[in-house]
Amino acid sequence: MNYLASFGNYNCMRNTHILKNPIFIKEWANIAGQKESEGKLSGKFDISLTDDYYGEQTWEKAESKMQSAAIKQLLLKAKVSSEDVDFLLAGDLSNQCTGSTFGIREFKIPTYGQYGACSTMAQSLSVAALILDGCHGENAICATSSHFESAEKQFRFPNDYGALRTPTAQWTVTGSVGVLLYSGQDKLNSSRITSVTTGKIIDWGETDANNMGSAMAPAAADTLVSHFENTNTKPNDYALILTGDLGAFGAGVLRDLMENNEYPLGDNYLDCGTLIYNTSQDVGSGGSGCACSGIVLTADVLPKMKNGEIKGKVLFVGTGALLSTISSQQNESIPGIAHLVEISNI
Amino acid sequence: MNYLASFGNYNCMRNTHILKNPIFIKEWANIAGQKESEGKLSGKFDISLTDDYYGEQTWEKAESKMQSAAIKQLLLKAKVSSEDVDFLLAGDLSNQCTGSTFGIREFKIPTYGQYGACSTMAQSLSVAALILDGCHGENAICATSSHFESAEKQFRFPNDYGALRTPTAQWTVTGSVGVLLYSGQDKLNSSRITSVTTGKIIDWGETDANNMGSAMAPAAADTLVSHFENTNTKPNDYALILTGDLGAFGAGVLRDLMENNEYPLGDNYLDCGTLIYNTSQDVGSGGSGCACSGIVLTADVLPKMKNGEIKGKVLFVGTGALLSTISSQQNESIPGIAHLVEISNI
Repeated sequence: MNYLASFGNYNCMRNTHILKNPIFIKEWANIAGQKESEGKLSGKFDISLTDDYYGEQTWEKAESKMQSAAIKQLLLKAKVSSEDVDFLLAGDLSNQCTGSTFGIREFKIPTYGQYGACSTMAQSLSVAALILDGCHGENAICATSSHFESAEKQFRFPNDYGALRTPTAQWTVTGSVGVLLYSGQDKLNSSRITSVTTGKIIDWGETDANNMGSAMAPAAADTLVSHFENTNTKPNDYALILTGDLGAFGAGVLRDLMENNEYPLGDNYLDCGTLIYNTSQDVGSGGSGCACSGIVLTADVLPKMKNGEIKGKVLFVGTGALLSTISSQQNESIPGIAHLVEISNI
Repeated sequence: MNYLASFGNYNCMRNTHILKNPIFIKEWANIAGQKESEGKLSGKFDISLTDDYYGEQTWEKAESKMQSAAIKQLLLKAKVSSEDVDFLLAGDLSNQCTGSTFGIREFKIPTYGQYGACSTMAQSLSVAALILDGCHGENAICATSSHFESAEKQFRFPNDYGALRTPTAQWTVTGSVGVLLYSGQDKLNSSRITSVTTGKIIDWGETDANNMGSAMAPAAADTLVSHFENTNTKPNDYALILTGDLGAFGAGVLRDLMENNEYPLGDNYLDCGTLIYNTSQDVGSGGSGCACSGIVLTADVLPKMKNGEIKGKVLFVGTGALLSTISSQQNESIPGIAHLVEISNI
């Protein structure tokens, strides 16, 4: 795979949308599995599980219960009734997105299901911000979830088989996240979404489902180059550039790609996949799954933007690998996508 | 199941969004499978297949190729380059929405994947209209597909088993659809989307995966009652009310529900599931699948709105059953959702 190609030949001038109104990130909530609660972000979650079954009989039901718990916690923290929420954008990796459906059905909030694989959090924030910016509704919840056990069972092998993992393989994060966007009359003293850059499906022919970071890195590069060109900015103009879940290996590929496209990434670039687990936790190249980027965003980045530890503009770039077991079995490659959300507290 | 309950206790005043700008339905294109091409809409499709493998080795690849062909045909008919399309909203019923991913990746159009099961066409039209109404972008494509063989294989039994079908079972439509929305400076002489009502997940506990019409009918009723109340209109104010794919049985349930909620539906109510196949084609309660409502919309309704045969406001109400094989195996019920798009040519 020649991953040092240039992105200059793409039409990338139309996919950045500067928001006209302040779209505030009013509140957020998260819940994390046992392993995640023992990792780098230990103590920073609203709810930390000690048993990933979460009192349910199946992992799938546990995942849905997490999503329900995250949204309940979010509504409590924000002091907002579910009846006052205009849109709920949610999605996950389960077949037919049932992790979300059975987690959110009790709230009776108008809902548009989103599918962007692990980019779902960034996609939901993007779509919600674009809709709110058009003055349709004023409260929107973006939610997602993933569960290590249900993902492994669905995508790879039953864990009981004890299949070996490759060094480039990533670990699906067990957790769920809810974020409340607000565009009403009150001017909040909170971070806000200022622009979004919509990703395109980019497929460079990677076929190794244990190396999804490499499959997604070209999409992340395409979206980042688009954003810098469209906004006439450079990586150093941002307090933080945060990709979804390329993992350690994929983040290295992205650095190479950006260097080759004359937007080298500096110390202000981090990948969510590398920020959840401790090295001792043996997770290969890092975390992944729909909850991965959302967990890092809500447990670490947004709190730091609130207390001023991070000051400026942050690029949150969710990345997704758009494969299924069927597509892999039919020898398809792994298309990637990356959606960018610019968040500012200045 | 007491399906004659009232919807008055729901918060339904916030989910209708009147568009401020004209969102034109500029063009559309469709492709239909062999059985569909021999049905009621015979001769009305842009492309009619004589072999549902469509030159591919698998049904899944055939489905993706249909989606690719529908979008190519759409761009040709509309005389629009893919580089001038700002958003592509697409989704389907395949696990992880791969029918769409592998069908649309070649176009390099900024993409947000949508998941609403069989309501995906209405959902995509809704989300695209809401985004365009906020003056973000001016061309948006909404696309979806379904394939009888890949759906049966994924959701039920391999067809070779010859499993018996119940009278309430529906037949997944083989086909794909693309619709181009336009919100630019030109004032087109075409139908336009004037408002949308966002559906909520409604679950009345139906568990029979061979009776999805009943599972979805309460969601359709909830959305329709919301729309009538929010806009202070009645069923007779519309030239046509068209539900997605409740099928003959589900459409009857919806009539009962609407009657009980004091919005009885008259002769201007039709269901897409009953409009595709001839009675002799032995399809049980009617058509279903993501392509079902889109095929009827683009092969029949939009052309009639263009030539004046239908004049007035049309309510296009896509319905979706949000189940998976895993959720059914774990004894979950079947939640439904319905998204409404109001289309006008007056």
